[in-house]
Amino acid sequence: MDHFMKKELDLLRKTAPLVHHITNYVTVNDCANITLAIGASPVMADDEGEAAAMARLASSLVINIGTLNQRTIPSMMAAGKAANEKGIPVILDPVGAGATPLRTDTARKLMETISFAVIRGNLSEILCLAGLGAHTKGVDVSMEDRAMDPEGAAKTLAEKTGAVTAVTGAVDVITDGKRRAFISNGVPLMGRVTGTGCMCSSLIGSFCGADPDHPFEAAAAAVTAMGVLGDIAMEAAGEKGTGSFRAALMDAASKLTGDELERRAKYREA
Amino acid sequence: MDHFMKKELDLLRKTAPLVHHITNYVTVNDCANITLAIGASPVMADDEGEAAAMARLASSLVINIGTLNQRTIPSMMAAGKAANEKGIPVILDPVGAGATPLRTDTARKLMETISFAVIRGNLSEILCLAGLGAHTKGVDVSMEDRAMDPEGAAKTLAEKTGAVTAVTGAVDVITDGKRRAFISNGVPLMGRVTGTGCMCSSLIGSFCGADPDHPFEAAAAAVTAMGVLGDIAMEAAGEKGTGSFRAALMDAASKLTGDELERRAKYREA
Amino acid sequence: MDHFMKKELDLLRKTAPLVHHITNYVTVNDCANITLAIGASPVMADDEGEAAAMARLASSLVINIGTLNQRTIPSMMAAGKAANEKGIPVILDPVGAGATPLRTDTARKLMETISFAVIRGNLSEILCLAGLGAHTKGVDVSMEDRAMDPEGAAKTLAEKTGAVTAVTGAVDVITDGKRRAFISNGVPLMGRVTGTGCMCSSLIGSFCGADPDHPFEAAAAAVTAMGVLGDIAMEAAGEKGTGSFRAALMDAASKLTGDELERRAKYREA
Repeated sequence: MDHFMKKELDLLRKTAPLVHHITNYVTVNDCANITLAIGASPVMADDEGEAAAMARLASSLVINIGTLNQRTIPSMMAAGKAANEKGIPVILDPVGAGATPLRTDTARKLMETISFAVIRGNLSEILCLAGLGAHTKGVDVSMEDRAMDPEGAAKTLAEKTGAVTAVTGAVDVITDGKRRAFISNGVPLMGRVTGTGCMCSSLIGSFCGADPDHPFEAAAAAVTAMGVLGDIAMEAAGEKGTGSFRAALMDAASKLTGDELERRAKYREA
Repeated sequence: MDHFMKKELDLLRKTAPLVHHITNYVTVNDCANITLAIGASPVMADDEGEAAAMARLASSLVINIGTLNQRTIPSMMAAGKAANEKGIPVILDPVGAGATPLRTDTARKLMETISFAVIRGNLSEILCLAGLGAHTKGVDVSMEDRAMDPEGAAKTLAEKTGAVTAVTGAVDVITDGKRRAFISNGVPLMGRVTGTGCMCSSLIGSFCGADPDHPFEAAAAAVTAMGVLGDIAMEAAGEKGTGSFRAALMDAASKLTGDELERRAKYREA
Repeated sequence: MDHFMKKELDLLRKTAPLVHHITNYVTVNDCANITLAIGASPVMADDEGEAAAMARLASSLVINIGTLNQRTIPSMMAAGKAANEKGIPVILDPVGAGATPLRTDTARKLMETISFAVIRGNLSEILCLAGLGAHTKGVDVSMEDRAMDPEGAAKTLAEKTGAVTAVTGAVDVITDGKRRAFISNGVPLMGRVTGTGCMCSSLIGSFCGADPDHPFEAAAAAVTAMGVLGDIAMEAAGEKGTGSFRAALMDAASKLTGDELERRAKYREA
């Protein structure tokens, strides 16, 4: 490696990009806090009357459909188009795509209307958007889908959309259709805290906001950082339970250095 | 006792039921986290375009009116009816019923439209729904109501609705109109953390999702578990203040075993 | 000083005022928890069908435009008018005013329609509302605005609106147009946790609810308390990172005594 992760994190800390979110009300506080902790500046604005205006002020835009509703779908569309016009990277987190027609259809319409820099989801969600079938159980990966191939799903979706695609799970896979990265940081306890996927998407937004011209490197650094935060939090507080672990995730984000990110990264490209 | 609480918790952990919530935006993150911590899987979907579809995928449905609004009332109705049709247990948390006509009227309409497996509230809320008058102060029990009889209120509402009814407070009362249980776990500090009532309702949803045919036992195990979590968190962090206590509640939920739940339960049927 | 801060906090703890919030979904849980921790009782109700009714039950009303949307603007107007009619103090937190026309215009309309007891914002927000120009970056103070004069901005807005005006920052400034207070409690780490501004506004609501006839003293005690909580949390957990620091803020609020508030206050009137 050429220490690109350290460079990405140092750049983020130096530039403190403004990351606009249109996201769900379940994990929005965690998204705001991890964005601040990693060194960026979050803003959340979801009314159609200001979503596009706020997107134009921002360095990146994260669209997360976790509590999708009719009121904010037009806001997502307007903000995404405005960001595209200004060349601001847009990240999609298709929470629960495959679980209900509303989520699947909306995620597809978002992909038709907006050019995404990065799409991040779990295996069920990415399978669904890649058109490879899926059995999403609420917002988690279903048993049936666990046997499926994350790399193939990510590659299909990346080729279809032009977006760097990340499937996060026990081993995370990231591809732009050509380059492929595999990350094995992170711990199972992350699945027992709500919003670790959403927080990962906020980190992608933060890194992309700082380095909009390199979405693959930004996404790779962000996904690795999320796993490393899990590793650090597990050591610090995993034994205590999920409440302490969650606070430790945020502690780790606010204290993470580029050197520690590099040292702990279990990252390979192949 | 026949160790039914251990059986209930073991069943929950084994089946990891999907618990659909239509709930308020104040405590929704805590509801999601305690659902995960206890071993179930939360999902939140409140748009009318998917609320019923998500309910059909779930093992239980929790309807919480904490930040009630016109947009989600039809979603609550549709999800509740869909759950009833499929025999999925529905839990009502009538937050603030009695405080404003909108809350009181909506709670009543929900009870007319939907067959609830369990209703859980504080004394003011249950008095209001039982038609026994109430003086709800915002979302807390009023001074006037503290002298009222929780057991009578719970019995009246249980007989009126067919729902297992739980009044939580210093001593929790649960009844299906015939069986009566009294639980004296829990600590006053729980009243100084927002959402401990909502979290209790999410636990009821989690236990009912795992054991839909035994709503009394499921509710009794859930309400006892919430009190036990308070007891454990008090020992671990009560002296530090409410921020540490709140994280300790979640820690306790994620570490709770059936044996510990049985051992700590201050539960009697009479 | 005449120990007014101790008196304010003792009064708050004794009266436990009900503080109605119409606020954003990013930091609402923190607002509820700090309101409880300091000794008041929070309620959140934002539907037009009950916002005014809930305001009439409350001891104070906090209007926070952090995730402003068309649905809740009429609720803010109705609740504010109802509170004004009953003489219940109303607090405005104009989050992000200056960043988008929707926020700026709505904040101005709120100020035209409602008589506010206290307005609290960061320097960019107060400059904007005072008509002195501003360059709000999302919801944070912009680089350009850091050179501006907080005292002048606060005085201009206080004279324009009749509201006690607080500009919070490295040194907080509070004025009613005549009296001026400067508070130098607080630590930079507070800027890396989302919602410390919103929480400060909830504290102002809590103190004003207990002492509605003295908005200057109530606001001064609340803003000082927020800074003192930051100081205590920094000592307790600042080194660990922002997750632990955030929990420590809440711990400190729940344990704060009038004597400690007085002893730690870095407060001067001039």
